[in-house]
Amino acid sequence: MSTPIQFYFDYSSPYGYFAAMRIDELAAKYGRQVEWHPILLGVIFKTTETKPLMHIPLKGEYSKHDLLRTARFHQIDFVIPANFPVATQQAARATLWVQNTCGKDKAKQFAKKLFQTFFADGVDISEVPPILKAAEDVGLDSLELANGMIQQEIKDQLKEEIEHALKLGIFGSPYIIIDGEPFWGFDRFDQIEALLKNGKI
Amino acid sequence: MSTPIQFYFDYSSPYGYFAAMRIDELAAKYGRQVEWHPILLGVIFKTTETKPLMHIPLKGEYSKHDLLRTARFHQIDFVIPANFPVATQQAARATLWVQNTCGKDKAKQFAKKLFQTFFADGVDISEVPPILKAAEDVGLDSLELANGMIQQEIKDQLKEEIEHALKLGIFGSPYIIIDGEPFWGFDRFDQIEALLKNGKI
Repeated sequence: MSTPIQFYFDYSSPYGYFAAMRIDELAAKYGRQVEWHPILLGVIFKTTETKPLMHIPLKGEYSKHDLLRTARFHQIDFVIPANFPVATQQAARATLWVQNTCGKDKAKQFAKKLFQTFFADGVDISEVPPILKAAEDVGLDSLELANGMIQQEIKDQLKEEIEHALKLGIFGSPYIIIDGEPFWGFDRFDQIEALLKNGKI
Repeated sequence: MSTPIQFYFDYSSPYGYFAAMRIDELAAKYGRQVEWHPILLGVIFKTTETKPLMHIPLKGEYSKHDLLRTARFHQIDFVIPANFPVATQQAARATLWVQNTCGKDKAKQFAKKLFQTFFADGVDISEVPPILKAAEDVGLDSLELANGMIQQEIKDQLKEEIEHALKLGIFGSPYIIIDGEPFWGFDRFDQIEALLKNGKI
């Protein structure tokens, strides 16, 4: 019962952001670690023939309302960014570079900062400058990151991560796997907690 | 704070079934009534360009797992019916006829029985005989129902209900409206309870 929790997310997923703000705290309560995996839903949606939530008639409008209400309910700082959804391959690649170079803990700190930049401050993180700013805010060298994140091996690594996620059946964000048990959505934190607490569900 | 809760559902929606098994109890806890509205998601999915959950790659497989787990978590009897999803216009029309003829309370009792026939017993309710059986089980005259549910005015009434639901922005099941506040999904029962308890959310 001490294998790490696997947490898959897209930086453009608001429910992924909510999960990101809570998952380490929840895991720690039950003595678990969390491994963070940035992926790109755009690639995965081609397989599932899905569109971003905001682009679905009726559901898109409701979702804005639900996101604001859900953020209030869970007391998480949140705005709907003016540019949303956005492309997140730069943010994902930057995170992988930080993981490889500075370790998982620093990468997690950076990932939280990136999420907050987008969903608490409303700043578009599809562009490189806000990514570098977030890096500096958590004590990273932004010049090193700017060079590192564009390397071909990082691009390849992200592709492999997404292919692996697809093989695992991952189709959305947040997607959390605990001891082989898959959970999709911030809505499932009640069931996740039950599993962590009781060792089964 | 005493207006009835509006509960929209499709008989082929398992999360709608979960909501149906719990909503009256939750409402009663806070002195509220619930008005039940059977609708047809098939019609609504044309507007939202959505497919039934089970027909979406990856998501369909996960959903089966999630449904069984969610039923266990909430201690609700549940099987995935061999025929699923099914057409539910007959069940919806039958419910409207019972509402018109025998009142809302009897219709609700019948609706719960129909849902249980499908999702607890696994019996296909797209056909008329199981619908008539469910009617008899709750003390209705099945011959009267068989005649009543095929009348043109009932067909028209269902169409109008669905058009009205679309105007309200309803795109899924369960969909619950409380004092103008919309909630989609059994997942939102925590927020629904907060609204009922505090009068705001």
